[in-house]
Amino acid sequence: MMERAQQVIDLCRRLAEFTEEPGHITRTFLSSPMRDVHHELRGRMEKLGMTTAVDAVGNLRGYYAARQPAAPRLIIASHLDSVPRAGAFDGILGVVMGMALVEALAGRRMNYGVEVIGFSEEEGVRFGVPFIGSRALAGSVDNDLLEKRDAQGLRVIDAIRNYGLDPARLTEARIGRDTLGYVEFHIEQGPVLESLGLPLGIVEGIAGQSRMSVCFTGKAGHAGTTPMNLRCDALAGAAEWIALVESLAEKTPRLVATVGSLEVEPGAANVIAGQARASLDVRHTSDQTRHSAVKNLLDVAQKIAGRRGLTVAWEQRMDQPAVPMNQQMTEMLEMAVKAAGFPVHRMMSGAGHDAMVLAPLVPAVMLFLRSPGGISHHPDENVLAGDVAAALAAGMNFLEALEGRHA
Amino acid sequence: MMERAQQVIDLCRRLAEFTEEPGHITRTFLSSPMRDVHHELRGRMEKLGMTTAVDAVGNLRGYYAARQPAAPRLIIASHLDSVPRAGAFDGILGVVMGMALVEALAGRRMNYGVEVIGFSEEEGVRFGVPFIGSRALAGSVDNDLLEKRDAQGLRVIDAIRNYGLDPARLTEARIGRDTLGYVEFHIEQGPVLESLGLPLGIVEGIAGQSRMSVCFTGKAGHAGTTPMNLRCDALAGAAEWIALVESLAEKTPRLVATVGSLEVEPGAANVIAGQARASLDVRHTSDQTRHSAVKNLLDVAQKIAGRRGLTVAWEQRMDQPAVPMNQQMTEMLEMAVKAAGFPVHRMMSGAGHDAMVLAPLVPAVMLFLRSPGGISHHPDENVLAGDVAAALAAGMNFLEALEGRHA
Repeated sequence: MMERAQQVIDLCRRLAEFTEEPGHITRTFLSSPMRDVHHELRGRMEKLGMTTAVDAVGNLRGYYAARQPAAPRLIIASHLDSVPRAGAFDGILGVVMGMALVEALAGRRMNYGVEVIGFSEEEGVRFGVPFIGSRALAGSVDNDLLEKRDAQGLRVIDAIRNYGLDPARLTEARIGRDTLGYVEFHIEQGPVLESLGLPLGIVEGIAGQSRMSVCFTGKAGHAGTTPMNLRCDALAGAAEWIALVESLAEKTPRLVATVGSLEVEPGAANVIAGQARASLDVRHTSDQTRHSAVKNLLDVAQKIAGRRGLTVAWEQRMDQPAVPMNQQMTEMLEMAVKAAGFPVHRMMSGAGHDAMVLAPLVPAVMLFLRSPGGISHHPDENVLAGDVAAALAAGMNFLEALEGRHA
Repeated sequence: MMERAQQVIDLCRRLAEFTEEPGHITRTFLSSPMRDVHHELRGRMEKLGMTTAVDAVGNLRGYYAARQPAAPRLIIASHLDSVPRAGAFDGILGVVMGMALVEALAGRRMNYGVEVIGFSEEEGVRFGVPFIGSRALAGSVDNDLLEKRDAQGLRVIDAIRNYGLDPARLTEARIGRDTLGYVEFHIEQGPVLESLGLPLGIVEGIAGQSRMSVCFTGKAGHAGTTPMNLRCDALAGAAEWIALVESLAEKTPRLVATVGSLEVEPGAANVIAGQARASLDVRHTSDQTRHSAVKNLLDVAQKIAGRRGLTVAWEQRMDQPAVPMNQQMTEMLEMAVKAAGFPVHRMMSGAGHDAMVLAPLVPAVMLFLRSPGGISHHPDENVLAGDVAAALAAGMNFLEALEGRHA
């Protein structure tokens, strides 16, 4: 498998050259380099005996037929788009691995078909809305979404037409009743597997996520002429709160809570801050734990503001429930990893993935590959050939198990 | 005095209409509305029997001669420029009050001349360098300063020439040996007098000031996939430090320490901050207390960074020593305030003023007028007619006392 794993990595690196920005890896929804990726991958899929198409939302779809007609299908998928100045593996690795598994079948047909899908959009970069590709499979690309505009003022529906696709055919992209399951291979994008010294992680579910904007308002003032006891310093209040966000998260097992953005107004060295607007991102596998943490943090913000003569206001930006993966499929994947000779480690995904969109519709499962340095969304993003080999071996075992189960 | 005080306020409000930005008060160094202000004030000064000129750096200079030739002079001055979108009183009030005092002399000549100066530049807006007007009096407008460029790429020396002035005559703007003293009336720009219920404050000196840029560097990471214990969150470290900056300042009498700006990179809601760059502004009347506070705060930053696996680096941006006002003149001003029937309150100025530039060369003194709401550098900036009347009465007493002392 090591040779095949190296080929997977090499192909990911080659595909990374299809970019909107020379010298960087940037490939957004229905961009011109996306067309090059489609061309390259279709050619390779067809050589593997797959039939290929690009659906109405720009998803690349390669089908490797079963040995009998009217057989159900397994979907192996991930996304082909990237964040700006990305690494070479986030998303596309899962598509190339799907193809590598078909290749490893070496022409052998199973009692189910294998559809390898490269989603056109997952990162939310071009239109500020993520998962456009997998939403088309879920049938949730609605008119609202089609009318969203990118930075150039172009709508999603225009982008689809300009790519030569027909938005009227969107419903044809929907997942069929013949779908057995959904498998996604993805880099972890975090440091957990590396810190445990493990190549693979079996994803039990995607954490639920709350996003808030929390705004402390005080009174701007002259940094030289306002004594400490006459200040209403919005930044000092926000700072006190940010420290408590961190310590609350540390005390709650598996909770992550992050203030990643803080905008200070007026933001001059010699002016006491009149306003400090913080983002808050809270994630946990239990929606109840998450909701109670958010409530707790907002209570704390209120108390800090009250004591300091500040006001605090918040807006909810996201409240996305946790999405469990399919239990039976997860157990099959666990057996497949074990049979390949690798330790089993179950974990939650703190990041959203296409699997999250499809899990409510079809038995879905995800396998994480260790991210060296925990790095992702960065040119240094990487994956180890040994880990890809491990995942391919587990993937082959999984395909076999599915053949057995379905027999 | 109330009528005269109201006239002072009315004139300040009328002059506020000379602005670069209609609907706002914005009047920077050698701008076109500055020419209108010069024209208006020269006309009024000449009616008061003053001779007027605009010196080579654009300072408006009105001289009210003494009763004998070769007499010394008292300077009453402040600045005519403003920050963008300013209030109507910062700076210009002191110039108009100087004229009101000359008017109150009603043609009577003293045994010293009175020079009322409207400095062309104090705020540092156009060239990023403050005090250009008073520096010309101090003889410290050097070639470096003349070569500074504004946002349009124009140099100070070009701005001077374009205004119709001759930079070769800069040395003529210098203060003469005949200068008895320097008096500046200025709004407090802070909430202290209001909080004490006092109209006037006698400025003992200008606080020294340190400015630093303090940058915490950690490791950017995915807010969902990086557990709390594997994070190096630069913003969390900065937040902990900002809280300590505040509490150290609160523990040190008369110290003010401010973090007014905080820039977070990458600054996205779902990304752990890799970098947080904070400003630090520390002011105190004792340079030793200020230096030791800065050292203490940097030590604390280092400790926080060390414990969190962050690095911290800093740059000094300013280290300006405290400037005491002249003791004898301050006592005279104190007597003048008392004689006018107002309570005496000595205080430090936490903000820089032109008086700071001239104090090393000539006995200088400053009188603060209460700032309603502590507001300044804002359209709501205001001054009470009663307080202006109090300051004018004190000013007249001061002029009389000086006549007596000099007799």
